[in-house]
Amino acid sequence: MSGSVTPLRAGNGSVVRPVREDRRALDGDDRTARAVWSALVEPGDRAAGLLLAAHGAPAALAGVRAAVGAASGAGSPEGVVARLVEPLGEDDRRGARRALARWAVRLPGLAPDGGLRDHLTAGGRLVVPGDEDWPPGLDDLRETAPPALWVRGTLPAAGRRAVALVGARAATPYGEHVASRLAGDLARAGLVVVSGGAYGIDAAAHRGALAAGGTTLVVVAGGVDRPYPAGNARLLAAAVEQGGAVLAEVPPGALPTRTRFLQRNRLIAAIAGATVVVEAAWRSGALSTARHAAGLLRPVGAVPGPVTSAASAGCHRIVREEAATLVTDADDVRELVEPVGTVDAPDAPPDTGAPLTGAPATTRGPEDVDPVAARVHDALPRRVARPDGDVAAAAGVTLREAQDALAVLELGGWAQRTATGWRAAVPT
Amino acid sequence: MSGSVTPLRAGNGSVVRPVREDRRALDGDDRTARAVWSALVEPGDRAAGLLLAAHGAPAALAGVRAAVGAASGAGSPEGVVARLVEPLGEDDRRGARRALARWAVRLPGLAPDGGLRDHLTAGGRLVVPGDEDWPPGLDDLRETAPPALWVRGTLPAAGRRAVALVGARAATPYGEHVASRLAGDLARAGLVVVSGGAYGIDAAAHRGALAAGGTTLVVVAGGVDRPYPAGNARLLAAAVEQGGAVLAEVPPGALPTRTRFLQRNRLIAAIAGATVVVEAAWRSGALSTARHAAGLLRPVGAVPGPVTSAASAGCHRIVREEAATLVTDADDVRELVEPVGTVDAPDAPPDTGAPLTGAPATTRGPEDVDPVAARVHDALPRRVARPDGDVAAAAGVTLREAQDALAVLELGGWAQRTATGWRAAVPT
Repeated sequence: MSGSVTPLRAGNGSVVRPVREDRRALDGDDRTARAVWSALVEPGDRAAGLLLAAHGAPAALAGVRAAVGAASGAGSPEGVVARLVEPLGEDDRRGARRALARWAVRLPGLAPDGGLRDHLTAGGRLVVPGDEDWPPGLDDLRETAPPALWVRGTLPAAGRRAVALVGARAATPYGEHVASRLAGDLARAGLVVVSGGAYGIDAAAHRGALAAGGTTLVVVAGGVDRPYPAGNARLLAAAVEQGGAVLAEVPPGALPTRTRFLQRNRLIAAIAGATVVVEAAWRSGALSTARHAAGLLRPVGAVPGPVTSAASAGCHRIVREEAATLVTDADDVRELVEPVGTVDAPDAPPDTGAPLTGAPATTRGPEDVDPVAARVHDALPRRVARPDGDVAAAAGVTLREAQDALAVLELGGWAQRTATGWRAAVPT
Repeated sequence: MSGSVTPLRAGNGSVVRPVREDRRALDGDDRTARAVWSALVEPGDRAAGLLLAAHGAPAALAGVRAAVGAASGAGSPEGVVARLVEPLGEDDRRGARRALARWAVRLPGLAPDGGLRDHLTAGGRLVVPGDEDWPPGLDDLRETAPPALWVRGTLPAAGRRAVALVGARAATPYGEHVASRLAGDLARAGLVVVSGGAYGIDAAAHRGALAAGGTTLVVVAGGVDRPYPAGNARLLAAAVEQGGAVLAEVPPGALPTRTRFLQRNRLIAAIAGATVVVEAAWRSGALSTARHAAGLLRPVGAVPGPVTSAASAGCHRIVREEAATLVTDADDVRELVEPVGTVDAPDAPPDTGAPLTGAPATTRGPEDVDPVAARVHDALPRRVARPDGDVAAAAGVTLREAQDALAVLELGGWAQRTATGWRAAVPT
């Protein structure tokens, strides 16, 4: 992305001079510049996304350093800033100028590499756009896409289908059971499960996928070095050990604040091909993930539950609002992310019947033969056999119709011929 | 309806001569003729409906008697039959001729009044089109509308809103609880509850409505003199005593056969303004009622339940197929039958929040003030107060933004000013 961007130049035509030499070397590297960007801005910062797109991460960062230095009196403020925001639209220019004021507060306290070296030393990876394992769905976030992902573990190769299973921390045993079962079934079907790192539905989903030998991605709101809540630290470690990952858009050490949680939800929605809300109260953070998914035109599913359970009220609400499709099992979920027809037909439930609309079901009983046979079968005595004329009168059909129907019913094992007439039979 | 119809005349121009004189007197009365028709035909007999519409019930019945008599050798068969079916379309004529053969089997065994006198003597009513209490929705069934309704008790005046609550006999305690609660809430809102007379959801719905002092209609598949199952006899009697009714389209004495159950479902769907499936397995008779309601362009609702419960699988299926709207309470149900805006806004759930789409919710916390205030609030230390500059850096906002936000947060009771700076506060 940055390769094709003209280097940012100050008003006098010379390349902007970074504030400190050791920073320039680092900033010149796209990966390091993105690490710094992700430490500099809060998640979802639109002004940052616009500047990264306009200049590339290194040049945009150099421009910010110069502008902040200029604002501190180290140069001509207006020329540097104007040059930085010049490629943006008018409203966005104003937004970027305000953003510079925000960034100026935090910039002096940042490590020159944004903490990247320590992260790599600890065995982590920084994944940036263009990397093979950069989740392609993140590009749909456009200017609010994260500058980089801080990763512990392994991201699945692009193209692996991923499904977000989200829901309330205050989950019920029912919700946790369903989350775990869905995740296991999806993992067995080869899908990657994506969720947060919280107790409740998040943890149940990861546990279910891991128990089935699957891959899970834990998208956390704070730094990947800070498992939160601490009680899930072993679960997150297991996700990494089993070929998945813990990932964040904020650098190691960052606290999982409430606004970061809400922004984290957009990452989950963007990485996954579909988002399923397993259990959520009327107002629940999980619905924010669904909202992001809907905004990205991703399919949204919701698992129903008892109407007597407040923990399912949010799921019912988004189905009622037609913002979500009701899903009951992994096949339903797979239909959200896989092209129609590629999901194996589910095993017929024990009680498979005719759909409310569409093609009739396969023959199951005399009522499926034809209406006359059904009526004749209804009219058959259960114990004492009766002549066919009596059966015809009872059924309200002609003698001929009754005789035809009785022949069919006998073939099907539903009618029995005796010396004195006909009676109903139970198929063997 | 029959008043404007030209009497059926035989080929020679004289009025068709009924087979027996005592029958003619009775047949001449629309009500009695309809009683006989309902005893003669099986529910939903299209040929009967077409002939009734073409000739009126008395003349159509006289024609059938003449045709059957003629077919027995008492006259010119072809002329009588041709005259009877003449107003019908070509396919329907063939259908009516086949129907005559069916009816000929049953006609000789019928009482001349179809059993009407005994029914009236027993305190019953026969309700026919044009009666004040004829349910107007039945007319939507057109040629498969019943010729008459056999009623024990009182039908509500036309226009009273009615909702069908249907579901499986093999209901779970959850399903029965929800059916009873929904019915009670609907009854308290002044709606009439319609259902069958079976165990399970049907019985729970009637019980709930009756306990709330409401009116219920029990639509049975056999004769109204034969409570089926017998265990619900007292419940059906209570429905009648409390101002509701037990009703059927087949005459007293008729057996509740399987085909009559299925046809009975169309009556429930047609009488009610909307049908709600409370609990139904993947294949369930209750879905047939929903199918009829959909065919009549009536709204269909379905109550969700645990995905682990097979008893809710049919409900989930019709919501997934978008044939039904998910409903969770009586307000949701009322929205199906009452014009938008007339249902009182439901009491806000304790955890009311922003909808997935649409207008934002009312202010609840600092996160609803504005994004900057939310970030600043996130950055506030919980215990040891910090200067505003530290808060600004932690939040990633300018000092000025932090100061503005802190002022708003203090007003809202979410931030507390101390001698050494700011910390978070919990609103009282």
